[in-house]
Amino acid sequence: MTDRKASVCVLGGGSFGTTLANLMASEAVPVTLWLRDPEMARHIREQHENPRYLPGIALDERLQVTTDLNAALATAEIVFLAIPSSSFRTVLQQIGPQLAGKQVVSTTKGIEQPGFLMMSQIVEQEAPEAHVGVLSGPNLAKEIAAGELTATVVASEDEQLCRDVQAVLGCANLRVYASQDRYGVELGGALKNVYAIISGMASALGMGENTKAMLITRALAEMTRFAVHMGANPLTFLGLAGVGDLIVTCVSPQSRNFQVGHALGKGETLEQGVARLGQVAEGVNTLRVLKQKAAEEGVYMPLVDGLHAIVFEHKPLPAVIARLMSAEQKNDVEFAAFMSAAPVKS
Amino acid sequence: MTDRKASVCVLGGGSFGTTLANLMASEAVPVTLWLRDPEMARHIREQHENPRYLPGIALDERLQVTTDLNAALATAEIVFLAIPSSSFRTVLQQIGPQLAGKQVVSTTKGIEQPGFLMMSQIVEQEAPEAHVGVLSGPNLAKEIAAGELTATVVASEDEQLCRDVQAVLGCANLRVYASQDRYGVELGGALKNVYAIISGMASALGMGENTKAMLITRALAEMTRFAVHMGANPLTFLGLAGVGDLIVTCVSPQSRNFQVGHALGKGETLEQGVARLGQVAEGVNTLRVLKQKAAEEGVYMPLVDGLHAIVFEHKPLPAVIARLMSAEQKNDVEFAAFMSAAPVKS
Repeated sequence: MTDRKASVCVLGGGSFGTTLANLMASEAVPVTLWLRDPEMARHIREQHENPRYLPGIALDERLQVTTDLNAALATAEIVFLAIPSSSFRTVLQQIGPQLAGKQVVSTTKGIEQPGFLMMSQIVEQEAPEAHVGVLSGPNLAKEIAAGELTATVVASEDEQLCRDVQAVLGCANLRVYASQDRYGVELGGALKNVYAIISGMASALGMGENTKAMLITRALAEMTRFAVHMGANPLTFLGLAGVGDLIVTCVSPQSRNFQVGHALGKGETLEQGVARLGQVAEGVNTLRVLKQKAAEEGVYMPLVDGLHAIVFEHKPLPAVIARLMSAEQKNDVEFAAFMSAAPVKS
Repeated sequence: MTDRKASVCVLGGGSFGTTLANLMASEAVPVTLWLRDPEMARHIREQHENPRYLPGIALDERLQVTTDLNAALATAEIVFLAIPSSSFRTVLQQIGPQLAGKQVVSTTKGIEQPGFLMMSQIVEQEAPEAHVGVLSGPNLAKEIAAGELTATVVASEDEQLCRDVQAVLGCANLRVYASQDRYGVELGGALKNVYAIISGMASALGMGENTKAMLITRALAEMTRFAVHMGANPLTFLGLAGVGDLIVTCVSPQSRNFQVGHALGKGETLEQGVARLGQVAEGVNTLRVLKQKAAEEGVYMPLVDGLHAIVFEHKPLPAVIARLMSAEQKNDVEFAAFMSAAPVKS
């Protein structure tokens, strides 16, 4: 592809899918948003607003909307997937063959069980002829939709895919950085929700800035330890899809994960918190899956263990905190030894 | 050394020195705090309070205080340096020979010009027979003094020094992690203040969570790029002395650096901001030194360049932001290529 902007299709009319599609439409990229609900499609087409997921945000008039999946895909060169993890494989099974030769970029975070599969690994299975990538970063949809400045990462082994996504998505409000570590970028997006629960808990306990920064940093060390064990590049976690996304997730009190953590910190049980908030937070499911995988793989994850003990084993919070603070004092960044430090310049 | 706790001396009665000494005293470590002001020494000895730097915090009665530098050093096995960077070399010149064979740990952040020297490099020059280390992390003194949980990093090529510092300083409220990358740990502590100014500016401009997380992440990438060029280990910046300290510095509105940034973001000039706040922020000096060093070394630091343009070249803020957001979209973590990513497990 050259300077001509590729044709794009975005699958999924939730807040992130709508935001992405709208951003590209407003930069004159030919883009079609696919969603299931004909009523919502009509509303977006006529009122230029997504009342359920982005109420009050005026969408660009050039944004095309359809409920016809085949039509949406027919002319698209780049396909962004912004469908919930619960229906991800079902949708992919329908359209797998049509994705052959296309650039397919997942923006969905989640882990499929059994198999501990990331969403882009499902794409590989269901659309083996597609070029596969992922998009992740400190990207609260409502802020991007409101025109706030931010940055994101496109990750793929396929460098052409990265360049093409940078070309259609990069604009004055969004910088798009490239990475070759698809698995690491995707894992960061999936794991962070567990640590947002812990941050909510710390906030409920009135912990100070040192403590919150320590928690985010040790969360990062723990995520990275797990990811490196699974084959990712530790340096991915220094970037926007690692620490960047972790910070935004851990400091934003709006997320359900943070709110569940806050309820736990105030002494509610998981059941009470969920009953009051009306929905299970994604991080709770990730916690269960991650605890099991870490045990199978023999990876040391004290924050995951501690949170699991509180949430599922009903251990008292102070005892878990005391155990965390009294564990053996190890190295700050244990895989630092992988890199040989050059001599100090002076 | 064995389980017996080493004798410790802390030089410097500011908020951090007093906090460190008090923490050890309350864990029954034999510790002496040295400071210059006889009046303050008497007050601490009699009232168990440091009224200037930690008003309202009750200090442990076992904390010894002296104004006699030689007496303070005579029996100490571990010496913590918490003196301001402006008088650091002068004090070291007085006591260099007495430090022979001792473990000397600098907690002071700063860069000496000319020479671009970290404080521990000054210790090496003035006390060539000492074992040298540094201490750094997300460590706001007032929060540690108030008993909040946190963690810190001791960094030294000398593993015995790291273990001994872990033994005297680690306790239920403070975890002490070890690192071998002294230069990286120390550089992180010195550079972060520049980015706290930028965070204050972002706050004044009402920027969203995505934007703030992006700024911290790109700040981290930029600090790491510079540090790696200077010989540090990039993975140090994943740890408490890198991202941990950066987060706490960038989100704490109390710091002078943040406040100067806030003033700049509200449209004041540096001169107006400094006049109102009554003191030059350390980050302003670091900015000048760093801009020059980055130019000499040919290291790309767009945030430092942008801030320098605003502070010292009086460029308008919107133009600098627009230039930052329209720069070429590069790789997320450029030195990621240094690590070979292993194949993805599934």
